[in-house]
Amino acid sequence: MAQKISKRSEDYSQWYNDIIKIADLAEHSDVRGCMVIKPYGFAIWEKMKDILDKKFKETGHSNAYFPLFIPKSLFEAEEKNAEGFAKECAVVTHYRLKSDPNNKGKLIVDPEAKLTEELVVRPTSEAIIWNTYKKWVQSYRDLPILINQWANVVRWEMRTRLFLRTSEFLWQEGHTAHATKPEAIAEAEQMNNVYADFAEKYMAMPVIRGVKSESERFAGADETYCIEAMMQDGKALQAGTSHFLGQNFAKAFDVKYATKDGKEEYVWATSWGVSTRLMGALIMTHSDDLGLVLPPALAPIHVAIVPIYKTEEQLTQIKTKIKDFSNTLKQAGFTVKFDDDDQKRPGWKFAEYEAKGVPVRIAIGPRDLENNQAEVARRDTQEKQTIALDGIADYIKKLLDDIQSNLYQKALKFRDNNIQKVETYDEFKEKLKKDGGFFLAHWDGTAETEELIQQETKATIRCLPFNLGQEAGKCMVTGKPSKQRVIFAKAY
Amino acid sequence: MAQKISKRSEDYSQWYNDIIKIADLAEHSDVRGCMVIKPYGFAIWEKMKDILDKKFKETGHSNAYFPLFIPKSLFEAEEKNAEGFAKECAVVTHYRLKSDPNNKGKLIVDPEAKLTEELVVRPTSEAIIWNTYKKWVQSYRDLPILINQWANVVRWEMRTRLFLRTSEFLWQEGHTAHATKPEAIAEAEQMNNVYADFAEKYMAMPVIRGVKSESERFAGADETYCIEAMMQDGKALQAGTSHFLGQNFAKAFDVKYATKDGKEEYVWATSWGVSTRLMGALIMTHSDDLGLVLPPALAPIHVAIVPIYKTEEQLTQIKTKIKDFSNTLKQAGFTVKFDDDDQKRPGWKFAEYEAKGVPVRIAIGPRDLENNQAEVARRDTQEKQTIALDGIADYIKKLLDDIQSNLYQKALKFRDNNIQKVETYDEFKEKLKKDGGFFLAHWDGTAETEELIQQETKATIRCLPFNLGQEAGKCMVTGKPSKQRVIFAKAY
Repeated sequence: MAQKISKRSEDYSQWYNDIIKIADLAEHSDVRGCMVIKPYGFAIWEKMKDILDKKFKETGHSNAYFPLFIPKSLFEAEEKNAEGFAKECAVVTHYRLKSDPNNKGKLIVDPEAKLTEELVVRPTSEAIIWNTYKKWVQSYRDLPILINQWANVVRWEMRTRLFLRTSEFLWQEGHTAHATKPEAIAEAEQMNNVYADFAEKYMAMPVIRGVKSESERFAGADETYCIEAMMQDGKALQAGTSHFLGQNFAKAFDVKYATKDGKEEYVWATSWGVSTRLMGALIMTHSDDLGLVLPPALAPIHVAIVPIYKTEEQLTQIKTKIKDFSNTLKQAGFTVKFDDDDQKRPGWKFAEYEAKGVPVRIAIGPRDLENNQAEVARRDTQEKQTIALDGIADYIKKLLDDIQSNLYQKALKFRDNNIQKVETYDEFKEKLKKDGGFFLAHWDGTAETEELIQQETKATIRCLPFNLGQEAGKCMVTGKPSKQRVIFAKAY
Repeated sequence: MAQKISKRSEDYSQWYNDIIKIADLAEHSDVRGCMVIKPYGFAIWEKMKDILDKKFKETGHSNAYFPLFIPKSLFEAEEKNAEGFAKECAVVTHYRLKSDPNNKGKLIVDPEAKLTEELVVRPTSEAIIWNTYKKWVQSYRDLPILINQWANVVRWEMRTRLFLRTSEFLWQEGHTAHATKPEAIAEAEQMNNVYADFAEKYMAMPVIRGVKSESERFAGADETYCIEAMMQDGKALQAGTSHFLGQNFAKAFDVKYATKDGKEEYVWATSWGVSTRLMGALIMTHSDDLGLVLPPALAPIHVAIVPIYKTEEQLTQIKTKIKDFSNTLKQAGFTVKFDDDDQKRPGWKFAEYEAKGVPVRIAIGPRDLENNQAEVARRDTQEKQTIALDGIADYIKKLLDDIQSNLYQKALKFRDNNIQKVETYDEFKEKLKKDGGFFLAHWDGTAETEELIQQETKATIRCLPFNLGQEAGKCMVTGKPSKQRVIFAKAY
């Protein structure tokens, strides 16, 4: 743990990279814009996946799998969607390599193996999925279709950041088909709420629920629901989106169904997704200048036990002492790591578990043995306490609960302290520069004003929130009427 | 369930397609060679994944994720591997589409967005992973690396069959790095045993463990361990492979480590994988002319309950009656589906669950209500029995165990009845034609003889088995000495 972590206050962006490195979460690969997710980082993502997958199934969805490739002619069928993603598509044009006749041991693309139609590597799967749903839907009896897919997608990015913006990323994409508009809207809302719930209860990350302005909507959607979180530098991070797609894809792919009374109608659609971007959000919500901080609900290791000993006999005694309570914790579903690696000193291990965000660390040495106690350190506040071994399992269970809720409360307080109402554009510009954070301001609802603000300040409309700033007023730029305040912020 | 299933005895290949269709497992997509795995098929694959993933973790492996794309220069680094896969690679050459100036609403590949180096869509990940391991390994302390990845891979196929051979498929690929040769060999053997165990205990599919002949080895491996299963048409299906890669990839990517005594050595490697091909193996091992047959260990639904009723009152009574035992079954981890869909008749439902391979179906009607009993049908033997409701949960638990073991025993018996020893090449050719199945024969160990046999008979060496035909003899073709018998068969 000789690596140094930059301070958040000095270089936030470098701090973020340092945390990922020191906690061993991920790294850039030699493939432009693509990352390697390392085992410890992937273990956190797996926890996220498992929880979300369970929630999707509880709300009636099944998993399925659709092709990685989308033939160009299908990709372009829904025009807005195609236009939105065309500029960042990886395109497969050939299906074979051959030996380079001029360069032994090297390969070249075989010009004879050119595809008659190019294949787009999926940036999102609406096109391929709606082309498939077309075959599955004839009557109202075939609806709803409630499917989710865990997959990799590719959006070619010029400037990449680990987890936040990579050319390939992992995600889930739900794609549902419904007989009626209200059903589809209810589904899109439900899934946005599932995301919000997951963010708050498991990631301990407060989010603001709302809808996007038209310019920020998903390409091909009639409405985009979203959850927006505030990072420690005051910037916003869009953590999940759920789209009401209207009949746009049904029309593009001609997906109709026979109603009960024998009429033909286009099908209504939603899609919704969260990605490995959530890893970036998790890191930036809780971590500090000492390393990663993880909420217990997503920690791959909950408790690290570091024995402090000089003799083998002491180590054996310690092992005996901790056996009962670590078994109790394991049975309660917690992961306990007993670290008796004799190549590393206790201090090194303390720093290691701190850097990796392990919520609770226990140290136990010869004097603790005598007194039947252990030193318990919590990662979030860095407080240490000496605890009697009798009843320590219950203490730790409660402590893990405390840490989970403390992290949420701390993040909530930080966020709420960094949301302000502004009335004039000057005030907005000044405070955006001085304070950062989120701004509740009135906006006239036009794309022109939105764009002007973005160009002049780099702040965008994060969402039209559901539970904030519902009062009417006048646009801070044009003075035109506004039905509710919207949230402006700089964003990831 | 009006669809017809071809008989195995009449058209085995069509039967296979019919089973996939009627059980709603998968279908061809409009993307050449790529399939859509439908929810019911994917639910079976998810069960396989969960069980295997647990086994990988129990044997010390962690999951991680590596890029989908491999730059051509990395791909070609290990020559044999590159040569083996070059002919079936999807190649990304461009990273942008643009509007077609001559065709409104259409897109074309933007010629200005040509990649300076082409990217191969991974057909397997040794190259990208060993290029990464290079950065991770300095000293013996960094070893072993025990990583697995669940991913999609692409191998361009001209003739495809659902699950068995598709251009894109899902799999897991383990990639491990070790300090010594014996450790790497032990790992490769261990993982082949994990696969064999999974196949036999969960898929109820007996397998023969062995090693491949040199010509059938994975491109880049020094030894390929495998498990081979026999399908109901007597053909072999390679169900999993585990490769001892020697130092081939370490040398190609220059991955060395410092030993304890300060020397530099190349790292030793293994890789191992199973894929959605296992779905094809599962289907062809157990299913019959009525539909899919699933071993309970992999069934998404264990018990389907079909109420037979005329009045709502009867339905309510049935619901009350089944409540206790279905809860008991659910608590024991079984999935119970109560099907009270009033749009479908009981007979239709029976056929549906039969087609989908649900291991146990329970029917309960008014007379059963009176007598406090139900009709229990097992899918594997199609036997029906009337069982008293008191104690039915225990009966069903035992029945599911019986079905699991019966399927294995049945498949084992079939396989063992279809393995024969042959002494001469004429005998081999005659019996291969007449009987099919597996043949234990002597072979002189040369690629020439192997190729001759393949060209003349289409049979290949499936493996040099570990526990069969260990006696020495003479090659059935050349009469040259042979250390053990090998298995010849036609294969998927």
